[in-house]
Amino acid sequence: MRMIRENINFLNPFELTGYLMLGSNGELVMLSEKERITVLETARAAIPKGKLFMAGTGCQSTRETIELTGKAAEVGADVALVLNPSYYKNAMNQTALVNHYKRVADASSIPVVIYNMPANTGIDMDAETIHEISRHPNIIGLKDSGGNVTKLGAIHRMCGEDFRIIAGGAGFFLPALTVGATGGILALANLLPQMCIDLHRMFLDGEMEQAKQLQIKLIPLNSTITRKWGIPALKEAMDMLGMYGGPAREPLLPLDQKQKNELKRLLAEAGILKFNP
Amino acid sequence: MRMIRENINFLNPFELTGYLMLGSNGELVMLSEKERITVLETARAAIPKGKLFMAGTGCQSTRETIELTGKAAEVGADVALVLNPSYYKNAMNQTALVNHYKRVADASSIPVVIYNMPANTGIDMDAETIHEISRHPNIIGLKDSGGNVTKLGAIHRMCGEDFRIIAGGAGFFLPALTVGATGGILALANLLPQMCIDLHRMFLDGEMEQAKQLQIKLIPLNSTITRKWGIPALKEAMDMLGMYGGPAREPLLPLDQKQKNELKRLLAEAGILKFNP
Amino acid sequence: MRMIRENINFLNPFELTGYLMLGSNGELVMLSEKERITVLETARAAIPKGKLFMAGTGCQSTRETIELTGKAAEVGADVALVLNPSYYKNAMNQTALVNHYKRVADASSIPVVIYNMPANTGIDMDAETIHEISRHPNIIGLKDSGGNVTKLGAIHRMCGEDFRIIAGGAGFFLPALTVGATGGILALANLLPQMCIDLHRMFLDGEMEQAKQLQIKLIPLNSTITRKWGIPALKEAMDMLGMYGGPAREPLLPLDQKQKNELKRLLAEAGILKFNP
Amino acid sequence: MRMIRENINFLNPFELTGYLMLGSNGELVMLSEKERITVLETARAAIPKGKLFMAGTGCQSTRETIELTGKAAEVGADVALVLNPSYYKNAMNQTALVNHYKRVADASSIPVVIYNMPANTGIDMDAETIHEISRHPNIIGLKDSGGNVTKLGAIHRMCGEDFRIIAGGAGFFLPALTVGATGGILALANLLPQMCIDLHRMFLDGEMEQAKQLQIKLIPLNSTITRKWGIPALKEAMDMLGMYGGPAREPLLPLDQKQKNELKRLLAEAGILKFNP
Repeated sequence: MRMIRENINFLNPFELTGYLMLGSNGELVMLSEKERITVLETARAAIPKGKLFMAGTGCQSTRETIELTGKAAEVGADVALVLNPSYYKNAMNQTALVNHYKRVADASSIPVVIYNMPANTGIDMDAETIHEISRHPNIIGLKDSGGNVTKLGAIHRMCGEDFRIIAGGAGFFLPALTVGATGGILALANLLPQMCIDLHRMFLDGEMEQAKQLQIKLIPLNSTITRKWGIPALKEAMDMLGMYGGPAREPLLPLDQKQKNELKRLLAEAGILKFNP
Repeated sequence: MRMIRENINFLNPFELTGYLMLGSNGELVMLSEKERITVLETARAAIPKGKLFMAGTGCQSTRETIELTGKAAEVGADVALVLNPSYYKNAMNQTALVNHYKRVADASSIPVVIYNMPANTGIDMDAETIHEISRHPNIIGLKDSGGNVTKLGAIHRMCGEDFRIIAGGAGFFLPALTVGATGGILALANLLPQMCIDLHRMFLDGEMEQAKQLQIKLIPLNSTITRKWGIPALKEAMDMLGMYGGPAREPLLPLDQKQKNELKRLLAEAGILKFNP
Repeated sequence: MRMIRENINFLNPFELTGYLMLGSNGELVMLSEKERITVLETARAAIPKGKLFMAGTGCQSTRETIELTGKAAEVGADVALVLNPSYYKNAMNQTALVNHYKRVADASSIPVVIYNMPANTGIDMDAETIHEISRHPNIIGLKDSGGNVTKLGAIHRMCGEDFRIIAGGAGFFLPALTVGATGGILALANLLPQMCIDLHRMFLDGEMEQAKQLQIKLIPLNSTITRKWGIPALKEAMDMLGMYGGPAREPLLPLDQKQKNELKRLLAEAGILKFNP
Repeated sequence: MRMIRENINFLNPFELTGYLMLGSNGELVMLSEKERITVLETARAAIPKGKLFMAGTGCQSTRETIELTGKAAEVGADVALVLNPSYYKNAMNQTALVNHYKRVADASSIPVVIYNMPANTGIDMDAETIHEISRHPNIIGLKDSGGNVTKLGAIHRMCGEDFRIIAGGAGFFLPALTVGATGGILALANLLPQMCIDLHRMFLDGEMEQAKQLQIKLIPLNSTITRKWGIPALKEAMDMLGMYGGPAREPLLPLDQKQKNELKRLLAEAGILKFNP
């Protein structure tokens, strides 16, 4: 847990809005009930008050989700990020999903953000379902990792300016901003926080050509780290950059030497030295 | 837990080989760590020694799977049914899956059966992967709920007569038997145990025309209960038949009145009175 | 066209029910309007009157399908096999498909068989849709290449004994027979007609153990030829067996030498010498 | 054919770069060999010399694609838009696709643009395949209707500034422009040409907030017309706007009255009166 603290301390100087603990890359589904609480407590102690502390609390049952959300609030998380249940795929129709989020949002003392992550759950919630869920006053936004920007634009139009849409991947951060996203929760921000911040700023300043160049520079690195090799690559890269990554939990396997070399090459190509002098 | 005991007592007189606890319909993914053990202990007390006791123990991490398998063995389960991890879909290649099952089988004091359930996991393990996993001496079979009988035939040919292939759905039980399956673990056997036993016997006796008629009678009922409406329908049907079903855990929602009527009609059509006079 | 004639002559001595021309392996979608007619005329001349002559006539538009079906009837085909249109996937709902088949069946002077081929079309017509289409008196059956035997059983139950269900792949021929299929249209029958005939006969005679052994012997060969390498492998195998295969039309590419060797090995393993002494 | 001429005359005053004939909405797959040529000839006569004339020429076989591309060039098309073959999905690996496009580009006297349309073909060509194909000097760009902007950014980075990326749908036009697209071929431009032009201009002028508002206004209309109801809706809308739409060819079915009313409402909502006073 010391390592979590040190990683957060490493990132605190950057102008990031805050931290998500227990997301997909935080290996929520791999941790025991007890480990989850320990992670949240450790993070709470390390995250300065000025930064947002978001906790992933989505489980397969409504009951367990409510319970974990309650514990996260108790520990001091500011917002809960709730992944939709997905095991009983055939049963996860709009009625069931709306009911699930309603129950969780009713029971939660902290605001809830919807988390759509089709590559992992096998379910891609549609705009109408998101819109229905968003009607609850305690549901304040959506983190979408699917990358369907047409759908994000539709959601923005349906749900209005107050509903926060957060890009869940650095590969489509800029495109998402153009259709209404207000920020990103990006695995890559663990490695290249300044570049992610810069990309957002360029968009806000209308520097679209610069933004494009930075966006397409981030894409290959991001695809490799989040789609192709996943968490072990993210952790390996953190190790390479002087943070603590460490091994992923099995069944995830460590990178082999060839993959490590390729990763090093990609980090160099992305101008990593700016970040890690 | 009294209800689990009573349901098992209800089924004990039938010539079923045994029971699976904590399968997909057993809502493993919905239960807390503690509830899982309680279910296994209750079942152990109720299952006679002559019947096989299989326990679902597949979790997202190798560590947790090993732990739960160990506890199941301690409680007295005869066999562990291990669903493959599936959350990090992109990373679940053959190497990762083979390594996962190897670790679990190495650590387990009871034999392990692979569980392939693509409709829920979003991953359909292929014949080559199953074959690789099957090389481990403590891996004794496969429960397949995907229903791709061409693949089952290929697995039977690759893995040989000693590797047990178990049909995971009543909809393709007869076809699976013709390509090498040796039995079934069927949700429908909770409702119509005698018909499932009869179908198997007809096949063994070469009464193929009778078997066909029974098989196609089971299909619509099974599709409705396992694919279309899922666990709440299975539980409702158990209630209708004098067992205890009870409510499913949310996010699963109970059947509405119209669905209940349709279910009743389907049970009647399937000749349920034979089972529940 | 001489080659088509010779291939048919080669196969005529076997107790096959008949021939399908212009199926998926007959490269219907690759041929010009004129070539299609020439193929049908050539086949008509070579197919003896005692054998059934089925012609693939499914095109993307209803109009073109009606036209080609009409020409096939004119040339002397006995039955038309009509693949569903699939390009405008989103629009191919049940209403559109039922209307399409109704129009074609109304206009056709020969009976029509539905052709479901999800691996190529990307559309897997469901049991309800097939059932609706089957109500037309000029629709007499279904060739299904998807291999979902649960669905085939459901269709058999819904459509009754008079609706012919034909297995579209040798990999699931035996399982399909057990749930109501009455025959097969099998790519592998071009190579191993006697084995396909034998498998059917074993099933009819209730020799289920023998049938199982033959079925699982055919699976790896069939998977390689129809799924993995496709038409070029089928043609190469025909060449190896003394028939005429010849090159497939591009974009399909010929097998490389390594693939050819593997194919030869598989044919040997399947006991090809019985067929080609 | 008079109607094609009139529609083009209707659109000529707008500052559109040019016209695509025989695209997906142009029903290429529905037309006979002869009809295709007639359409191209009619268009050639109606398209002024200052506008680009692009012709869809992708067929299932390489041979037929080369032939139709040759005819399009003869008729006077400036560029060929070549959809990838897709019927033999399993065989359409990178090698086969690269070879196909190479053959077509070699044989063509006019430049070739790749057309990726996964919703219709069931194949989503990846960035590496596009990149390989793009190495041919006669391949000048890509029309992508898949809408995966991360992939478009990757392609832009791999293929460089000279390779033209064209957004294939109005739903993601703005996001695509931010990662390197240089234009769009948009079904909606038949109905709302000025809005599509405006959106592009706003992007070029850095008016990102205005652009966002226009983009999200176009999304629901576009989704309904291109995804949900397809060509019959596009044609109906053209009729409503004073152009000629007419009936789509079966199996596509006309809108019912309720759909027509909804369409009218959507067109009104999108401020259609600006276009059709």
